[in-house]
Amino acid sequence: MADIPVERLAIADPPIPQHDFSNRVLIRSILTRPDGGAGLSGQIIKVGGWVKKGREQGKGSFAFLELNDGSCPANLQLIIHLTDDVKPLSQFTSTGTCLHVEGELQMPPPDKQGKQMIELRVLRVIDIGLVDSAKYPLPKTALTLEFLRDYVHLRPRTNTIAAVARIRNALAYATHTFFQKHGFLYVHTPIITTSDCEGAGEMFQVTTLINEAERIEKELITHPPPSQEEVDMAKGVVKEKGEIVAKLKADKAGKPAITAAVAELTKAKEDLAKVEERFNMKPGIPKKDGKVDYGQDFFARQAFLTVSGQLQVETYACALSNVYTFGPTFRAENSHTSRHLAEFWMVEPEIAFADIEDDMKCAEAYVRFMCKWLLDNCLDDMEFMVEKFDRNAIRRLEMVASTNFVRLSYTEAVAILEEAVSNGHKFENKVEWGIDLASEHEKYLTETKFESPVIVYNYPKGIKAFYMKLNSDKKTVAAMDVLVPKVGELIGGSQREENYEVIKERILEMGLPLEPYEWYLDLRRFGTVKHSGFGLGFERMILFATGIDNIRDVIPFPRFPGRADL
Amino acid sequence: MADIPVERLAIADPPIPQHDFSNRVLIRSILTRPDGGAGLSGQIIKVGGWVKKGREQGKGSFAFLELNDGSCPANLQLIIHLTDDVKPLSQFTSTGTCLHVEGELQMPPPDKQGKQMIELRVLRVIDIGLVDSAKYPLPKTALTLEFLRDYVHLRPRTNTIAAVARIRNALAYATHTFFQKHGFLYVHTPIITTSDCEGAGEMFQVTTLINEAERIEKELITHPPPSQEEVDMAKGVVKEKGEIVAKLKADKAGKPAITAAVAELTKAKEDLAKVEERFNMKPGIPKKDGKVDYGQDFFARQAFLTVSGQLQVETYACALSNVYTFGPTFRAENSHTSRHLAEFWMVEPEIAFADIEDDMKCAEAYVRFMCKWLLDNCLDDMEFMVEKFDRNAIRRLEMVASTNFVRLSYTEAVAILEEAVSNGHKFENKVEWGIDLASEHEKYLTETKFESPVIVYNYPKGIKAFYMKLNSDKKTVAAMDVLVPKVGELIGGSQREENYEVIKERILEMGLPLEPYEWYLDLRRFGTVKHSGFGLGFERMILFATGIDNIRDVIPFPRFPGRADL
Repeated sequence: MADIPVERLAIADPPIPQHDFSNRVLIRSILTRPDGGAGLSGQIIKVGGWVKKGREQGKGSFAFLELNDGSCPANLQLIIHLTDDVKPLSQFTSTGTCLHVEGELQMPPPDKQGKQMIELRVLRVIDIGLVDSAKYPLPKTALTLEFLRDYVHLRPRTNTIAAVARIRNALAYATHTFFQKHGFLYVHTPIITTSDCEGAGEMFQVTTLINEAERIEKELITHPPPSQEEVDMAKGVVKEKGEIVAKLKADKAGKPAITAAVAELTKAKEDLAKVEERFNMKPGIPKKDGKVDYGQDFFARQAFLTVSGQLQVETYACALSNVYTFGPTFRAENSHTSRHLAEFWMVEPEIAFADIEDDMKCAEAYVRFMCKWLLDNCLDDMEFMVEKFDRNAIRRLEMVASTNFVRLSYTEAVAILEEAVSNGHKFENKVEWGIDLASEHEKYLTETKFESPVIVYNYPKGIKAFYMKLNSDKKTVAAMDVLVPKVGELIGGSQREENYEVIKERILEMGLPLEPYEWYLDLRRFGTVKHSGFGLGFERMILFATGIDNIRDVIPFPRFPGRADL
Repeated sequence: MADIPVERLAIADPPIPQHDFSNRVLIRSILTRPDGGAGLSGQIIKVGGWVKKGREQGKGSFAFLELNDGSCPANLQLIIHLTDDVKPLSQFTSTGTCLHVEGELQMPPPDKQGKQMIELRVLRVIDIGLVDSAKYPLPKTALTLEFLRDYVHLRPRTNTIAAVARIRNALAYATHTFFQKHGFLYVHTPIITTSDCEGAGEMFQVTTLINEAERIEKELITHPPPSQEEVDMAKGVVKEKGEIVAKLKADKAGKPAITAAVAELTKAKEDLAKVEERFNMKPGIPKKDGKVDYGQDFFARQAFLTVSGQLQVETYACALSNVYTFGPTFRAENSHTSRHLAEFWMVEPEIAFADIEDDMKCAEAYVRFMCKWLLDNCLDDMEFMVEKFDRNAIRRLEMVASTNFVRLSYTEAVAILEEAVSNGHKFENKVEWGIDLASEHEKYLTETKFESPVIVYNYPKGIKAFYMKLNSDKKTVAAMDVLVPKVGELIGGSQREENYEVIKERILEMGLPLEPYEWYLDLRRFGTVKHSGFGLGFERMILFATGIDNIRDVIPFPRFPGRADL
């Protein structure tokens, strides 16, 4: 391109469009063009962003700045010259400085056209947000992801967390696009729930009882409760006013007099009620029969944060046939691993008139769609990941996007693992039919044995949830897990038991009470339908895509034991 | 179409595609064709769905069934004949019955071609989910929305809640599509938060303290705590073992003997620690200095459900420039109105390098995009709403999609309202500069005065949040509200104060502590940027679109005081 005169290019290309809701063009609309932006040379534009790196040149007569606005991983190079209005240059070169400028796009001198095809000569500084680099917590030097976790409010300004944010965004939109394309309705299942799915225990409680108890305690300190005497006095007033009313009535007094006396009685009764209420106020969490009285909590019963939207989304699947939920889920587990969060996002489709085969087909199509989407829409961010974190990241996406997933039954999987053991492969966990596969077993299947995504189906019923469809062998259920290299289990799903008698039996067999599941049983009682679904851990998908190791780095605001910043 | 021979049409049209992940075609792919499905006559297909209405005909020799699968509001008419395999017909005609059938599409006799252009003659019943109509809670008779709220798990089977679900889904996807199209990144702001935005108070607490207290109480009942004697005894053992070690060392005994004695000492110390821990176990919520000891809670501090993702999403806007969040938010307000929920969804975009003008432009474009999207993608559901709930619903969408929003300052709005008062218009609430507009005032502006969406901007600073940009008049802030007919305030937004000194001053002026906002101040301390954003109440948008009156009917699982079903 370098030998085409600047003037011709400037005329040939239409003006670059301004962003619709801010006074600038997005840097990606310059740099991600096939010509790297060269065709825009000569155009006067505004850009805004944060300085990644700056350096003064020409004995302090000008400076080069690398500006990033988050719209793509690449930086736009700015050249800013020292003038009466623009000084000192050092204020522009600090990492983290925010700049909103107007300038002219120009091609760098031919000998400098290596990294960038276009640069911006600054004509005017519209706004600057300064940084005192002595105080800025994120200097230009390489920072560890662990260090950055102490600065969740600033870390999106780093290349890595920014790239993760764009990849996460792309996967979220890919998710909606995939399911909408296939006729699924997005359903918002509840975050606050009164159903303890699977009796899982490790749930966060949602309550206003503690706040209320603290309020009452404070209230009782500032306004001490009335004494027994004060209560008795208020009772006395009610009695007295009652007697006056009775007397007036007996005396056949005039209506106005009686009305006035009744009003006074009513007032006395109200006062008594207030005094008695305050007399009965007790500090602490309200109790009844020795237990916490949830009747006084906000929802008049014990409430939790959801661990899964599945059971609730089934109610919509059993009415509208194809649905999915995509929302936050919670575990109050005391896990300090790199794979667990207290708050994480799940995608849970549910399909009516679908069996376990359909379910596997959907899971495979969805995962492959997401991989292809990233290759099509986030290749620059993926290249960054390959360079910095995982040289196999793009290859892994390409492999999954183009490979049919291996499918094998749990029984076959166990046989393969047993064979591996007999050939000398060492596992820490026992391999035996009836025990769940451990993470190392899953990794062996997907990374070593098949080097491909693997779907394992038909698990022993004893290790799976009550709602999974009992197979005709009565020993296994129509459950399936999708295993992928790097993260192991990415998806867990099943055909749901649609037979009323069987599922009722299974609930009882698991030692669960029937009452909380009556609504769930209603779905089988009235117009029951064969249906299937699965759940994908959204952060796991991001770990899989990016090659990043710790789940705390792929969610904007990680929550885990002892930590919930912001 | 009726005079074209069936054979020709069947050959002319390609086979209708099966749904990718279930063994049937979606009814909408038949009935929403421009020809109403007539061109598909002769094709053998499978469908699944639930019977809306059924009636036996021809002296019980066949039945007509209206089948709905949720993919569109329209029902497919089925004709099923009594045979040895298909009997009694009465089991098919109950409302709510689930059917999965194979059949042949055929055009109804010419004299019956009013409502439908195509019907399905059932050849084979693949599956049936029966309904005992005596027990089914949702008979075919018209049910009130209030009645249906007691059956949130079954109500999506009704026409109204199904239509709302499709409209809600369409608006959610329209939201993502709009922001993605304009280069915004979707950011998942946290649900559990330790920031009390605006010191709002009415927040739900998220805790494991009560569960833990209950666990300890139960534990202390089954395993009573040790007595003081037992503690003393354990201390004695430690002392004794310690003396043995000391003696062995003094005697210069061999290493194995000392090692063994040290091991016993360690064991004794561990036992003592356990006994002391259990001795110190106290029932109830842990306290410290008379207050609840949140240091022992899951996140080692008090945690809440978010009331808004705005402050957190600003951290991403001040790094990646265009972002939005779309997630659940919560209020522990004791409101029993038709406009409030304890759990609801909000859309909150945040734009860097954008002022209040850009913000209004974005809000207007977004609302108009959603209205147009519904007209383009949900016209059949909107027609249902017009017929059943609000004859103006479609007209309202058309009006908003095609009208430039009126813009006026708060000061102008007050002048208009004062003029209305002086012309004899009665308001319940006072109109006066400095007081917030009441709902009736907002409705007057948008419904009576302008009959159009209205944006009111530049509100008095005293009635708005600390983070809103102080205007140069020092009296108003760059806040804006979008008012629409039917619901009043749909959007609230502002330019954010980006000046460090000014925002710090505003926080103190509001009587708020600085410490919890230090991270927020960091955004102004380091590379600050002009930025703006707004929040749209997603359920309000659905109320606006559908004309439905109660917010509890436009969210799948409503949560409000005293109620959180499922």
